[in-house]
Amino acid sequence: MKDIAFLGLGVMGYPMAGHLQAAGYSVTVYNRTSSKAQRWVEEHQGQSAATPALAAKGADIVFVCVGNDDDLRQVVAGPEGAVHGMKSGAVLVDHTTASATVARELSAVLQDKGCQFLDAPVSGGQQGAENAALTVMMGGDEIVFGQVKPIVDVMARSVQLLGPVGSGQLCKMVNQICIAGLVQGLAEGLHFAEQAGLDGKKVVEVISKGAAQSWQMDNRHETMLAGEYEHGFAVDWMRKDLSIVLDEARHNSSRLPVTALVDQFYGDVQNMGGGRWDTSSLLARLTPESSSEK
Amino acid sequence: MKDIAFLGLGVMGYPMAGHLQAAGYSVTVYNRTSSKAQRWVEEHQGQSAATPALAAKGADIVFVCVGNDDDLRQVVAGPEGAVHGMKSGAVLVDHTTASATVARELSAVLQDKGCQFLDAPVSGGQQGAENAALTVMMGGDEIVFGQVKPIVDVMARSVQLLGPVGSGQLCKMVNQICIAGLVQGLAEGLHFAEQAGLDGKKVVEVISKGAAQSWQMDNRHETMLAGEYEHGFAVDWMRKDLSIVLDEARHNSSRLPVTALVDQFYGDVQNMGGGRWDTSSLLARLTPESSSEK
Repeated sequence: MKDIAFLGLGVMGYPMAGHLQAAGYSVTVYNRTSSKAQRWVEEHQGQSAATPALAAKGADIVFVCVGNDDDLRQVVAGPEGAVHGMKSGAVLVDHTTASATVARELSAVLQDKGCQFLDAPVSGGQQGAENAALTVMMGGDEIVFGQVKPIVDVMARSVQLLGPVGSGQLCKMVNQICIAGLVQGLAEGLHFAEQAGLDGKKVVEVISKGAAQSWQMDNRHETMLAGEYEHGFAVDWMRKDLSIVLDEARHNSSRLPVTALVDQFYGDVQNMGGGRWDTSSLLARLTPESSSEK
Repeated sequence: MKDIAFLGLGVMGYPMAGHLQAAGYSVTVYNRTSSKAQRWVEEHQGQSAATPALAAKGADIVFVCVGNDDDLRQVVAGPEGAVHGMKSGAVLVDHTTASATVARELSAVLQDKGCQFLDAPVSGGQQGAENAALTVMMGGDEIVFGQVKPIVDVMARSVQLLGPVGSGQLCKMVNQICIAGLVQGLAEGLHFAEQAGLDGKKVVEVISKGAAQSWQMDNRHETMLAGEYEHGFAVDWMRKDLSIVLDEARHNSSRLPVTALVDQFYGDVQNMGGGRWDTSSLLARLTPESSSEK
């Protein structure tokens, strides 16, 4: 049976680590706020450690799921980082949505220690994490991927290798780019419907059968029309992701005019006090009276 | 058996009129270019008339499907327009994608003659018209709608009443607004994937299972990645529709920043010689080398 470390017990990591322990793996967790690690240990009968390095000691696989590039660097390669505890041949699987640059950087650090790195950002949100129904987009070596996939499968509905280290992050970026334009288009459409005096639900019933259809239209139009923005991924997190996207686009010479604009619009939503609203709150920015407050 | 007139035998009107004749109605067609009307009569054993007024004479329902507001005004209320031939109690059903303003204007003209008007723009494209699988978005009186719906059903998969005269056009506008942002988002996503060296098809395979999914992603990513832009609604027509949308938005005080920007981008595509390319050619604008020419 494999020994596993899981670093980062946020809304995603907490249930993900739980699925691994429930599947019979021996999981040692680390969390910056130790009380949460304590709660996890009590709930799941696992173990916890005081530092990432101690948690990683002896582990065959070290999973990480933290907030951003800086947190990730700290927890993997900082003074008490996982790399100082990992044994040769161990694999680090990073579920953080981070830059492709930090993925390549940490991969190099780990290879110097005889370890392997796979970037593995996820989509599916908190619900996907809780229901073990995540989509995992991975980048790294094909053989290493083959070794860890059966274990990642425990938390996921779909686990795919996209290419070398960084490719998982780049795929996640494509996902966020598509969503940015799509949600703004949907928000403008529903805003226009309201301004035109149409019954928004009836309009969606008609147009969602055709070329305007999207997951966002199917799953978010009712809450958007009700001015409820508490049903998914938060604007603060989207802005973090879009910042990574726009940095990467600068490096690879992509032209992302609408993504850059929608990033600014999300900044407006933050200024409206909507940093914790979900990404569909672009509509609230167009129609300020229809906010979560009403 | 009802007598029907059908005015305008373009790529949409030609097969639509054919379905009506095939369903057993007695159809008299009119087309500006009379050779096309002649061809239709030979193919469908119907009748043709030399002017809209003559075609509309004695008809219970007059269908119209022409290019734009000006064509519509001409064919309905011009010197030889349908209104001069229509009998009291007859209904005009307009399948043109036009402004809500012209719909209201022509409705008033017809009411003065004791006739009724329904705006009824469609989605589903040429293929939908040929396969009698259109979505029809109607605006007008509920009783009149109930009278004509069984006949419109002959050409359509879905026929819905959205509200008073003009509501069909407004619903179609919402459809085009949603598509504009959505397709630009998808184009930026696929462009970024190419620039990042990812396998675009594999990326779509992964992200189309989640929150980035759309009809456009499912049905257009392969042709987009191949730089083929000959699979649907043309940019020239989209610009016409977006012009109507942006006019209406000025009237009803809608804020459509991305729709307005994407309209400009479609202008770039026209300047690249892509007026006849399909709407997914926003990608060609980002990556000029991947055009239909290659």
